[in-house]
Amino acid sequence: MEQRDVRALLAAVASGEVTPEQAEAQLRVQPFVDLGYAKLDTQRQRRQGSAEVIYGKSKTPQQICGIVSEMLRRGGTDILVTHLSAQAAEQVRTLAPLDWDELSGLGIVNPDPNRPARGHIVVASGGTSDMPVCEEAARTAEALGNRVTRLYDVGVAGLHRLLANVDVLASARVVIAVAGMEGALASVVGGLVSCPVIAVPTSVGYGANFGGLSALLSMLNSCASGVSVVNIDNGFGAGFLASRINQMEGLA
Amino acid sequence: MEQRDVRALLAAVASGEVTPEQAEAQLRVQPFVDLGYAKLDTQRQRRQGSAEVIYGKSKTPQQICGIVSEMLRRGGTDILVTHLSAQAAEQVRTLAPLDWDELSGLGIVNPDPNRPARGHIVVASGGTSDMPVCEEAARTAEALGNRVTRLYDVGVAGLHRLLANVDVLASARVVIAVAGMEGALASVVGGLVSCPVIAVPTSVGYGANFGGLSALLSMLNSCASGVSVVNIDNGFGAGFLASRINQMEGLA
Amino acid sequence: MEQRDVRALLAAVASGEVTPEQAEAQLRVQPFVDLGYAKLDTQRQRRQGSAEVIYGKSKTPQQICGIVSEMLRRGGTDILVTHLSAQAAEQVRTLAPLDWDELSGLGIVNPDPNRPARGHIVVASGGTSDMPVCEEAARTAEALGNRVTRLYDVGVAGLHRLLANVDVLASARVVIAVAGMEGALASVVGGLVSCPVIAVPTSVGYGANFGGLSALLSMLNSCASGVSVVNIDNGFGAGFLASRINQMEGLA
Amino acid sequence: MEQRDVRALLAAVASGEVTPEQAEAQLRVQPFVDLGYAKLDTQRQRRQGSAEVIYGKSKTPQQICGIVSEMLRRGGTDILVTHLSAQAAEQVRTLAPLDWDELSGLGIVNPDPNRPARGHIVVASGGTSDMPVCEEAARTAEALGNRVTRLYDVGVAGLHRLLANVDVLASARVVIAVAGMEGALASVVGGLVSCPVIAVPTSVGYGANFGGLSALLSMLNSCASGVSVVNIDNGFGAGFLASRINQMEGLA
Amino acid sequence: MEQRDVRALLAAVASGEVTPEQAEAQLRVQPFVDLGYAKLDTQRQRRQGSAEVIYGKSKTPQQICGIVSEMLRRGGTDILVTHLSAQAAEQVRTLAPLDWDELSGLGIVNPDPNRPARGHIVVASGGTSDMPVCEEAARTAEALGNRVTRLYDVGVAGLHRLLANVDVLASARVVIAVAGMEGALASVVGGLVSCPVIAVPTSVGYGANFGGLSALLSMLNSCASGVSVVNIDNGFGAGFLASRINQMEGLA
Amino acid sequence: MEQRDVRALLAAVASGEVTPEQAEAQLRVQPFVDLGYAKLDTQRQRRQGSAEVIYGKSKTPQQICGIVSEMLRRGGTDILVTHLSAQAAEQVRTLAPLDWDELSGLGIVNPDPNRPARGHIVVASGGTSDMPVCEEAARTAEALGNRVTRLYDVGVAGLHRLLANVDVLASARVVIAVAGMEGALASVVGGLVSCPVIAVPTSVGYGANFGGLSALLSMLNSCASGVSVVNIDNGFGAGFLASRINQMEGLA
Amino acid sequence: MEQRDVRALLAAVASGEVTPEQAEAQLRVQPFVDLGYAKLDTQRQRRQGSAEVIYGKSKTPQQICGIVSEMLRRGGTDILVTHLSAQAAEQVRTLAPLDWDELSGLGIVNPDPNRPARGHIVVASGGTSDMPVCEEAARTAEALGNRVTRLYDVGVAGLHRLLANVDVLASARVVIAVAGMEGALASVVGGLVSCPVIAVPTSVGYGANFGGLSALLSMLNSCASGVSVVNIDNGFGAGFLASRINQMEGLA
Amino acid sequence: MEQRDVRALLAAVASGEVTPEQAEAQLRVQPFVDLGYAKLDTQRQRRQGSAEVIYGKSKTPQQICGIVSEMLRRGGTDILVTHLSAQAAEQVRTLAPLDWDELSGLGIVNPDPNRPARGHIVVASGGTSDMPVCEEAARTAEALGNRVTRLYDVGVAGLHRLLANVDVLASARVVIAVAGMEGALASVVGGLVSCPVIAVPTSVGYGANFGGLSALLSMLNSCASGVSVVNIDNGFGAGFLASRINQMEGLA
Repeated sequence: MEQRDVRALLAAVASGEVTPEQAEAQLRVQPFVDLGYAKLDTQRQRRQGSAEVIYGKSKTPQQICGIVSEMLRRGGTDILVTHLSAQAAEQVRTLAPLDWDELSGLGIVNPDPNRPARGHIVVASGGTSDMPVCEEAARTAEALGNRVTRLYDVGVAGLHRLLANVDVLASARVVIAVAGMEGALASVVGGLVSCPVIAVPTSVGYGANFGGLSALLSMLNSCASGVSVVNIDNGFGAGFLASRINQMEGLA
Repeated sequence: MEQRDVRALLAAVASGEVTPEQAEAQLRVQPFVDLGYAKLDTQRQRRQGSAEVIYGKSKTPQQICGIVSEMLRRGGTDILVTHLSAQAAEQVRTLAPLDWDELSGLGIVNPDPNRPARGHIVVASGGTSDMPVCEEAARTAEALGNRVTRLYDVGVAGLHRLLANVDVLASARVVIAVAGMEGALASVVGGLVSCPVIAVPTSVGYGANFGGLSALLSMLNSCASGVSVVNIDNGFGAGFLASRINQMEGLA
Repeated sequence: MEQRDVRALLAAVASGEVTPEQAEAQLRVQPFVDLGYAKLDTQRQRRQGSAEVIYGKSKTPQQICGIVSEMLRRGGTDILVTHLSAQAAEQVRTLAPLDWDELSGLGIVNPDPNRPARGHIVVASGGTSDMPVCEEAARTAEALGNRVTRLYDVGVAGLHRLLANVDVLASARVVIAVAGMEGALASVVGGLVSCPVIAVPTSVGYGANFGGLSALLSMLNSCASGVSVVNIDNGFGAGFLASRINQMEGLA
Repeated sequence: MEQRDVRALLAAVASGEVTPEQAEAQLRVQPFVDLGYAKLDTQRQRRQGSAEVIYGKSKTPQQICGIVSEMLRRGGTDILVTHLSAQAAEQVRTLAPLDWDELSGLGIVNPDPNRPARGHIVVASGGTSDMPVCEEAARTAEALGNRVTRLYDVGVAGLHRLLANVDVLASARVVIAVAGMEGALASVVGGLVSCPVIAVPTSVGYGANFGGLSALLSMLNSCASGVSVVNIDNGFGAGFLASRINQMEGLA
Repeated sequence: MEQRDVRALLAAVASGEVTPEQAEAQLRVQPFVDLGYAKLDTQRQRRQGSAEVIYGKSKTPQQICGIVSEMLRRGGTDILVTHLSAQAAEQVRTLAPLDWDELSGLGIVNPDPNRPARGHIVVASGGTSDMPVCEEAARTAEALGNRVTRLYDVGVAGLHRLLANVDVLASARVVIAVAGMEGALASVVGGLVSCPVIAVPTSVGYGANFGGLSALLSMLNSCASGVSVVNIDNGFGAGFLASRINQMEGLA
Repeated sequence: MEQRDVRALLAAVASGEVTPEQAEAQLRVQPFVDLGYAKLDTQRQRRQGSAEVIYGKSKTPQQICGIVSEMLRRGGTDILVTHLSAQAAEQVRTLAPLDWDELSGLGIVNPDPNRPARGHIVVASGGTSDMPVCEEAARTAEALGNRVTRLYDVGVAGLHRLLANVDVLASARVVIAVAGMEGALASVVGGLVSCPVIAVPTSVGYGANFGGLSALLSMLNSCASGVSVVNIDNGFGAGFLASRINQMEGLA
Repeated sequence: MEQRDVRALLAAVASGEVTPEQAEAQLRVQPFVDLGYAKLDTQRQRRQGSAEVIYGKSKTPQQICGIVSEMLRRGGTDILVTHLSAQAAEQVRTLAPLDWDELSGLGIVNPDPNRPARGHIVVASGGTSDMPVCEEAARTAEALGNRVTRLYDVGVAGLHRLLANVDVLASARVVIAVAGMEGALASVVGGLVSCPVIAVPTSVGYGANFGGLSALLSMLNSCASGVSVVNIDNGFGAGFLASRINQMEGLA
Repeated sequence: MEQRDVRALLAAVASGEVTPEQAEAQLRVQPFVDLGYAKLDTQRQRRQGSAEVIYGKSKTPQQICGIVSEMLRRGGTDILVTHLSAQAAEQVRTLAPLDWDELSGLGIVNPDPNRPARGHIVVASGGTSDMPVCEEAARTAEALGNRVTRLYDVGVAGLHRLLANVDVLASARVVIAVAGMEGALASVVGGLVSCPVIAVPTSVGYGANFGGLSALLSMLNSCASGVSVVNIDNGFGAGFLASRINQMEGLA
């Protein structure tokens, strides 16, 4: 409850329009729906500009469907479910249209055919193997109303592939740099552009990559300014944050 | 050299205005000044929107002064030097006015008295002990022309201190959340705002904080969306990135 | 053998009631049953206030049944078996009534229908995915005679869900805070209550959560006082300790 | 502000005793004092049963004195300052009587000569070298009104030293087990008592103790039930939590 | 585009042979083929002396076949595909002759029957279990035109097996030392030869080998000079680098 | 070739009994059999007092059978194969009698019915779950001619189980202490006996045991003297070393 | 108190020679001297064959002198104090003759001029830099009555230095192998001898040796049988254990 | 002793020129000088092509001077001492001319004024702060007779600085890539050249660089082929290996 609402409520109590008991109830009102196993945050759209996103990884299909149903009931569109298994996807599809990407496991329930594609986010990747994470990022950003360009397999071992696309990078409002192994892409991209760069380390590789640790540390220690990092393989987080930045209003 | 410049140059060659030899020289021209121990990137302002920043940590006062001199000679103002020791600061001060902060070691050489304070960046911290990192972030952002609000010691052990400032957070275009120990501040702030949050883990703490690792992992695994992370104690990086985001132009 | 028993025994020797040989045998008596593969601690109930608990993870169904049988033979009720597989549960069920929870794998053999539900323990969790660990904690506490309230999915990304339940937290004698990812819940809860908080990090998450390390370090470094930590995913340990604390007698 | 206070306030608004504006101000009132570099949590005593404790490690003597002054001004006694350096202690001593322990660095400002020594907490340690952490725990507990017994150098390499004190352990309401190196003390103590055990790993040792990691992991994996763990070298945390548990009221 | 080509192009523009537009196009030409999911680096042979190698691990058989086809179309022979699964190998075999090694998963597409076997590379291994990595190294080197001698199971626990082959080692131009567990082989070999030694740690072992970390650290800390290290299990990388070194021209 | 053999050989050359060529050949003779994939160390029995042991983990059944055959051909008895799978065991059984333990995977080929059971080695374990490692140790020691007593499930959480067996421990010439989780058993045993203690950390446990790291570090940091450590789960290594110590000759 | 003593005591009670009260007191008698800060284990000589050793690292000179005094009062000779600082050594020297080694910090108080030098222990080291740890091991073993041969700087980078001393190694009853960096010495020595090998990793090195971790892991994963490991830099522990093994009685 | 020498010796025995005793002595001769604290490897020059190098880090000035003296006595020139402190350098200078570099601590004793500068090694660095490691590499290579070009401060954040020097890189026979922080330089250089690249991670940086771990992992996981890695900050090792590769003879 925002401050101006508190003020209005108190004025109503003072004027007798609202009883103290009613006011107290309103001040306590829970802006979430309690499903037992989950407490759906129904105010997140208003508080944070986008609806709650469902982390599908350790939930049963029943739990996922329960939450999706509640969100659909409240008119939700472009409902995001990450790490959605094929089996759970099948069940969700019985509730509403579903745009599901096998590679990344990202599901978009009840996709809005009229959603915009504003601004410009570039998703660049070090190699073909990073595609699942890239697609999670790209599709999340698209579902949130952003225009996305994919620039895959531009790793630093063949630098000219990246340099040939400097124009594309230069036109971006945000770049998402996705790379495994040594994760050098983030630093190189960071040195070429003047917009924010979101680095996503991936677990692609073997041996001393230690499940993505090598790329993670590499990106955190980037010598290029303007680069920040999200969790290993967290394409969703990068896409979400890129959307926030891309859709910022200009300074008055 | 940008693409349109290449085009103009080639047209000049074709028209005979420029000889092939001259064109070749221009195509090869090095956009940096070689000081031997350093190669000053003179084009960074144009390429990335801000001048090169001097990492003062492992450089001798002589090397720092050499680089600063070259930048001053080219008319630089608000030249940033991070991790500037008291001793090196003294020497730099002989070259130009210096705004040096003892706590963070950040130096701003030849500060521009007329620099703007645009938009709004909030720097929130978990505790008093995080102040050196906070000040590095805040002063970096100010030097780059941003308006900054400091919100210190609002750690989650006394949540009401943070909640009492929800209005301040809500008015930010970017929030920098600085915390050591368990680094929970980033997630809590991330859940309260709708703007990008840059999390800075600090090495504050002892024992199993392992030099900032606890806060770093905590922030990377944040359950709140819209949060990204920079290196441990990297106040500069957070301030720089916050500036980029804060000063973004709006979508047309 | 407790000191007063030693004293009584020696007096009996001195008075001739007991021969030295008998006394020696009693002083040596082994308060355990040796099953070969296991040495069942039959005195633990008296020494520590609760019977031995069976760690089911790396034991064969035969071994588990052997130990359970011995405990049943001695009149045991509410015998706890952790990490009990479905297959082993089936075999245990042939010995006695079994209350088995699929999610957590916790089994309660020969449950006492009249067991009390004293005091008040609250089990709070960051998300739906933490439920297996939560249920292990909650059911352990219930089996040991405590009243338990479940408060699931109150993670800090939607703080109002937790704040709306401050009354519940305030009524607890002990709170068990279960969370994966960044584990911030423990600190936030720790700052809101005046009773002991037992933090349980879970392995929920991916990437840089490193199997629960992120939540573990986060909780160990909690800036809130009154918080202690058990092993990753150790719901049983938390439930057991909570029971001990909840059932403490008051100071005279 | 607690729920019953909200209710009373609203009734007063409804009755006209309080204007809506006054009510709004009260609802917003900040229960902390903002010193700029710190936000002193003035309600913690009421909310959590004990006043805020000052973490002295990365604060300047001036900052520490500032906070202490404010707490003294509000009538504080037995104000705890952890990691208080000799130099800072000297300055604090100019403000009020100070009980400062050189070994642990714990300071107790304005000690209450009449404070009680209730219940019974035993602080057991593996070796003489763990004394700084032990004393931090013991003195914290004493400052909070608990009776404490010290049982030092009872490490498991000479088990009879511990076994000779089983009576002491048995009489405790809480045991704090402090040990470095392999940290086995916690498990052994855990197997001997029926009260809660708080394990404190210390950084005592060398080589593969990795700054306390060995004892920390050992204690987290304790095979004894009823044991929980705080941060490496966190004597204060253990003493604080032990106090909470020791002073619990009995079940009605 | 090399410098002398730039010069020739500009002269052609100056002479009117080439228009500025054509020159610009040539300067921009992309030396790679964009397959969407991959950008095939067609200039690598010229730039680096060997064609691009396909990392088969996280690619679909379709993607691998797509890249192989493009390389075959351009006349490629001895095309290397690492980590090629049996299933993918079957599909690749439909495109061209394939020499596939089950143990290592290395595939050589369209092998050149006339390739040379120049110089001398010795692949030594600590044990039989290291064979998959050894074969990847040996076959890579052979495919790149080098003569290879295999010296397997000469680990330091039976030193005479290695010493009996000092003659073989002495005749090598490069030695690849492959070992898991404690990885001591690299240091011992390093002390016996005067040519470069490439150490390959393997993940062979268990427990505290931590997936190859023990051998990796051991090799990085080798007290013998002339030893460098590649990633854990990276037989390909060692074979490739050994080939480069073996085929170096002599100093004029 | 030992020094006295060299001397004899040279005397024979000098006397003309042996030609220089023959002598050279003998000096070069390889005391191993080269099977291609393995170099069987045929002199180990003479050099180290026991025949080579086959590490079965990453070898094919064919490779194992090849080595076993060669050892049988040379009259080997009690040939040890560690980590022998059921499938490989079946094939080995076709070559000679095999004593194979399913729990530990240890195989003893061509067991000697008359082997002795000298001295006394005690294998003590923390819990039932450590049995596979214990059996590997115990059976290895038995195959090498030692008398072994098993003392299982005497973990420190129920100390009296261990104390009741102090007599057994006191009669040992070597104790092998096997424990997972916090590995405290090694220190406690180390404090009770006066013979060498070999500590074997196991991977038993979960969460922060990190695959045996907790027990490993605990044992390495043991505060008890006379304790040394082998690799995680390395029952064989402990049994082998215990045999060496147990069978030492007395000081003259 | 040993079992036969218990028996005698009880017989005395039965015969009236001893009152029950006296018997109880004897059964409780503490076989240690409580100095407050330390509990001196006075029975260790009888229980474990050697007196308690003083770990000097985190003790004050006063504490060390207090313990030494008590041991001297009880007739102690060859009292070992590890990590004894020069300053503390000076104070100890006022109590009794002291043999103090600056390099290792090992002190031997009241050295017995007639102590024997039995059996044969070889201390081999990888390099000159390992000498402090070597000397701690060698001097400990000497103080405990063993004959010691030092074989320093025989690292595997110059294998012939070690091979030239195979005779020395072959004459040892125990070998202590001390090495930093990659720690390969332990495996190589382990392959050459038939007696027990105690490996001591040292922290000698830099970079990826991570304070001795590289040598530690290397030694734990040794492919040679008969090798066990003590803590990093733990020369004392190796010398102590070597003494135990060296002085074993032969099998009857 | 090489095989052909053995043959000649045996022929001499057979012919009576050499007695068996003399032959035995020669076969045993130790190719090192034993200084007690060190065993100087006098054959390394012949066996490995360069004299032994002195690791100065944990040696006393006396020990260093002792070894240097022995090498000088045998006519050594360009004797390398790494990590030579100013104090030790002063003492070494009394023995012979010394070329000592303060930055890296590398000393070259008795430098040969006529040493050649063959081939071409390029030392490239990410930043000015990496200079100590670079200089160690460059000076080592120069002392071993190689021509070296320094290319400092060409980190990937300003890629044009590196690209402007592609000609220099292309002319190298070996490139040493030195970088801290994220270590991306190695991969980028690796993608640009066709000669071997030796990557040297440095400890330059802070926070999550963990003492050079970030750069080390980054370089080990390089996606560019032809790159191998030495220890963190190991400039000497890189210079030594580069020399070996640079001076290779061509294939016949």
